[in-house]
Amino acid sequence: MNKGEQTKERIISEATALINQKGFHGMSMADLMSATGLEKGGLYRHFKTKEEIVCAAFAHYVSLVAERLREALEGIESPRERLAASIRSLSAIARDPVVKGGCMVMNLGIESDFTNSTLRDLTRDSIQQWASMIRRETVKAITCGEFDSKTDPESLATLIISSIEGAIMMSNVCGDPIHADRVMAHLEDHLAHLSP
Amino acid sequence: MNKGEQTKERIISEATALINQKGFHGMSMADLMSATGLEKGGLYRHFKTKEEIVCAAFAHYVSLVAERLREALEGIESPRERLAASIRSLSAIARDPVVKGGCMVMNLGIESDFTNSTLRDLTRDSIQQWASMIRRETVKAITCGEFDSKTDPESLATLIISSIEGAIMMSNVCGDPIHADRVMAHLEDHLAHLSP
Repeated sequence: MNKGEQTKERIISEATALINQKGFHGMSMADLMSATGLEKGGLYRHFKTKEEIVCAAFAHYVSLVAERLREALEGIESPRERLAASIRSLSAIARDPVVKGGCMVMNLGIESDFTNSTLRDLTRDSIQQWASMIRRETVKAITCGEFDSKTDPESLATLIISSIEGAIMMSNVCGDPIHADRVMAHLEDHLAHLSP
Repeated sequence: MNKGEQTKERIISEATALINQKGFHGMSMADLMSATGLEKGGLYRHFKTKEEIVCAAFAHYVSLVAERLREALEGIESPRERLAASIRSLSAIARDPVVKGGCMVMNLGIESDFTNSTLRDLTRDSIQQWASMIRRETVKAITCGEFDSKTDPESLATLIISSIEGAIMMSNVCGDPIHADRVMAHLEDHLAHLSP
């Protein structure tokens, strides 16, 4: 990586942490200049607009979560166990965030849903990818007899994503990660009840 | 109500809708001037700061939700039925928002959790009040034999709040209120399984 690429990576990394805590509107270019030690010209050499920065930051966040998830699922073959491990890994964001500030998918989704379709579509894609991973594992779990054939993959995806995201919000707002632990326990119990 | 009070109410009502869609940082005073038809001086006659406006808007939002909830619970005596009715009423925010923009408790909570303790505390209080309503009804449901005595009121409160808030977020980001319907169905089914 040359020096220019290193600087660009550093901007993305600092922007991800700032946006995840302060929001897209809440992060000023002055915040980013101060975090990176760069002048405004140095930032604009790598990114034309603030929106371009947030898109790069979001892609960075998603790659970090995907990496954590890959590690959590490594070597697990049972679809039910893969779902359980993904629930544990993603609920843990409340206690051990990938980037300080909670879950960027929800944070940016909430900030953009009524105001910025580019950013909203990024978060929508990421939710849809998460949902399709859950549906895929659920269908496999039905096929291999781990889950009852009446299990609805769509509903399970909604339940897992909604309750984990909501629990991360509750944990951060209330200052207590126990909310994520409780939701994780409920979801694990629910998976156990999906046996035929 | 005199003219000054009417103007103040109108500012609060417009600010609630703007903040719930654009966020506290995203709403500019120019937005509020344009929505109310008032000059900057007219706004500052009633509110000293933008933060004072958002506090009044949040209190207004909470009172509207409380009113909708009171109507939904009217005449229902069974604690389990009161919980079920509250779940239906609050999940319906995804399809029929109290104020356009989703749930202001989550929106403002997400925006303020790492940056503004005054606003975060307002949303925390409101989550805690909702949780204590759920715990109270759960304890009554155990006492009158509707729920098994092993039911944990704390966990049930976390599950209901997390999954409803998360489902409203998913519904708005994905542009499909079905996520709230699915979570509502799961929670109703879960309540049914809490019978002794």
